[in-house]
Amino acid sequence: MPDLKGILERARPSREESDNLSRTSEYILNSIRSYCTSNSINAEPLVVGSFSKGTNLSGSDLDIFVVFSKDYSRQEMERLGLKIGHQCLPDSREKYAEHPYVSGTLNGIKVDVVPCFQHSSDESIISSVDRTPLHTEFIRKNLSEEQKDEVRLLKLFLKSAGIYGSEIRVQGFSGYVCELLIYHLGTFARTVEWLSGLKEKATLGDTSHIFSSSSLIIVDPTDIKRNAAAAVSEDSYYSSIAVARCYLDSPGDEYFKLPEYPERSLYRDRGTYLFLITVRKPDLVDDIIYSQALRLEKMIRQVSSDSGFRVFGTHMIVNGNIEILIEIDVEYLPVFRTHMGPPVTSDNALEFLKKWNEDERRIRGPYISAGRLYVEVENEIRDFPHVLISGLSRKNIGKHLNTMKDSIKIERIKEGDELRILAYYYGRGIRRLHPS
Amino acid sequence: MPDLKGILERARPSREESDNLSRTSEYILNSIRSYCTSNSINAEPLVVGSFSKGTNLSGSDLDIFVVFSKDYSRQEMERLGLKIGHQCLPDSREKYAEHPYVSGTLNGIKVDVVPCFQHSSDESIISSVDRTPLHTEFIRKNLSEEQKDEVRLLKLFLKSAGIYGSEIRVQGFSGYVCELLIYHLGTFARTVEWLSGLKEKATLGDTSHIFSSSSLIIVDPTDIKRNAAAAVSEDSYYSSIAVARCYLDSPGDEYFKLPEYPERSLYRDRGTYLFLITVRKPDLVDDIIYSQALRLEKMIRQVSSDSGFRVFGTHMIVNGNIEILIEIDVEYLPVFRTHMGPPVTSDNALEFLKKWNEDERRIRGPYISAGRLYVEVENEIRDFPHVLISGLSRKNIGKHLNTMKDSIKIERIKEGDELRILAYYYGRGIRRLHPS
Repeated sequence: MPDLKGILERARPSREESDNLSRTSEYILNSIRSYCTSNSINAEPLVVGSFSKGTNLSGSDLDIFVVFSKDYSRQEMERLGLKIGHQCLPDSREKYAEHPYVSGTLNGIKVDVVPCFQHSSDESIISSVDRTPLHTEFIRKNLSEEQKDEVRLLKLFLKSAGIYGSEIRVQGFSGYVCELLIYHLGTFARTVEWLSGLKEKATLGDTSHIFSSSSLIIVDPTDIKRNAAAAVSEDSYYSSIAVARCYLDSPGDEYFKLPEYPERSLYRDRGTYLFLITVRKPDLVDDIIYSQALRLEKMIRQVSSDSGFRVFGTHMIVNGNIEILIEIDVEYLPVFRTHMGPPVTSDNALEFLKKWNEDERRIRGPYISAGRLYVEVENEIRDFPHVLISGLSRKNIGKHLNTMKDSIKIERIKEGDELRILAYYYGRGIRRLHPS
Repeated sequence: MPDLKGILERARPSREESDNLSRTSEYILNSIRSYCTSNSINAEPLVVGSFSKGTNLSGSDLDIFVVFSKDYSRQEMERLGLKIGHQCLPDSREKYAEHPYVSGTLNGIKVDVVPCFQHSSDESIISSVDRTPLHTEFIRKNLSEEQKDEVRLLKLFLKSAGIYGSEIRVQGFSGYVCELLIYHLGTFARTVEWLSGLKEKATLGDTSHIFSSSSLIIVDPTDIKRNAAAAVSEDSYYSSIAVARCYLDSPGDEYFKLPEYPERSLYRDRGTYLFLITVRKPDLVDDIIYSQALRLEKMIRQVSSDSGFRVFGTHMIVNGNIEILIEIDVEYLPVFRTHMGPPVTSDNALEFLKKWNEDERRIRGPYISAGRLYVEVENEIRDFPHVLISGLSRKNIGKHLNTMKDSIKIERIKEGDELRILAYYYGRGIRRLHPS
């Protein structure tokens, strides 16, 4: 059994770090307040994120929101938000999420200053950033001090498994999802137990107001129409099950250690071909985009392998576009393919014979092997991009996917870039399921 | 509808050809008789084969047997048989079937003089050659003149389909099998009708004394323990069904025309790799050898494709050895293979994870895709011969096949020889099912 108490001791920020966080956040709050007063800005700063909820791991960031009155236009709010950020963070850069925000470092702590609008939980939500203050409030009210430590253990466990964080690169469990898991299940031990027993779908909370096809649905208590776990990808969901089962089978300290960077040597000389398929992100809700992109990934896999390519792996991410990486064995198909027909004794054998005896594309046959009809057909298109495009164009894959199809771009990854691309897409896959 | 009367008119030997056959056979019979008398040899010449049965197509050979008393030893019989053959055929060469025999040309007719022992139908048989006189006698007694013409149509039909003849190159329907089909079914039309309706197995006659796994069993009326159709391969059996179904669907003259030589151009630039697998023929009855060789062919196909080679085709023949040709896409496997594990939620997921986390051959994973576990495993052996040998050695394929396995030789067909080899093995496949 791992020494959970010791692990927690090291994971929890030291008194010194906590004091530094408090001082720094206090300084920034004051700085923002005085700026707003001097400039007659109707906005109030608020510490959010794991530090404000008391669920932060050692070394975590500081998140400060500037909550604007709804009297401001979105444009005005964003303009003023950036100004305020630059004012209180000397060494700052602008970044962009749902609103633009400012990021910098103060007293050795990474600080984000993010503008948002004020909301209460009973009104319809404008943006997901604007919900953050409500989440902070909910967790502060509803988790005990002991449970906050349980959240820390869970975060560390999922981080070690490579599935902590909701960013696109990870598509894993956000801090808020970890907190809701402990809120529902009470302890780290019971959460791992729960994960280890999951099947294809899992839910927590009253899902009667949620329409989602995600594997994991955790109802957001501050907005019962929202799935707080929408960013958890299918792969991350299944990884959490796998790692929970491994842990229960033989618990150990290694399940709380951060993974090393994947060994690059694993990617040497694979002798494969990489193609990156990029599709314009359609104008749809995230949840629908993701499930459609998953379908497209499966379809690309199927068309490629039906056409005669060996598919070693695919990986899909959604960012500004939908990106699907595919690793295959060859760049060009063989000159011909073997097409299997029905058994000679079946009712449609005659139809097959008549069709292929008159088909110009046939290069051998129809012939018989083990009682079945076969024909060898010339592969008229042989390079992967054209084979894939032509294969997809023949499939009716639904309204959403059809519009996505039209914007498909396929590029071969250049030889020097293969390692980098593979490590990027596959990296998590290597680390995740063998924490030792 | 094809003009069957006209076709038959052209297929049947002309009066001139028949007279020539009669004169030539008479001459040889007399020549053999006088030689035997002069040299006190206790043997009697006998015209056998299609001419003697009246089922010969125009241009057929003349088969003369020299039937020896059973007082002679096999060795003595063979020695004298060759002497007699050379004596009556000026331009003669020795050939070898079950006994050695002499082949030559006389008056423009190809003549075989074959020695054998005398037998009656109620004794146990010494060799298959020795059975031929009994077959000749049976057909002469049991087929009417009209039925002999029906045999001619059937032979022509099967010849056009590339499945007439019992020689190894064809593994099709012998003349005797054609005669027995008409004996049982009466006419060409009814035989085609019968063929077109066959499923996986077919029998004619009382099969209660026959133990055979052949698709087609036609009891030899001169030896009820023998399957007269044992030489008909599975492929030829199914081809007869296919061509019968095509013919009934749209009968035409082309079903009675001899096939052209397959277009060699079909074999150009296939971009494939050919390997010939040779196995010592085990000391077993032909029927068992054949079914075991078929199993071996299927196993080779399966091992190759399970190992990661794309198999375009295999072809098996039994002659002095068992020869299996296999056509595959590459000579070497990729550096690694993707090995699929169980679903993450299944009972044996944990076992898979534990096994592969400790396996040195793993180069990526275990990772998750669409809820399943996968691992990438190094291909330690990559060249086809070694992959095949190693794959077969791990399989327990029964007593007979195991002894065959030990004598396996695998050679890569050299580049210049590919066309020749493909035409030899696949040639029939091309011609058979599209007679037009």
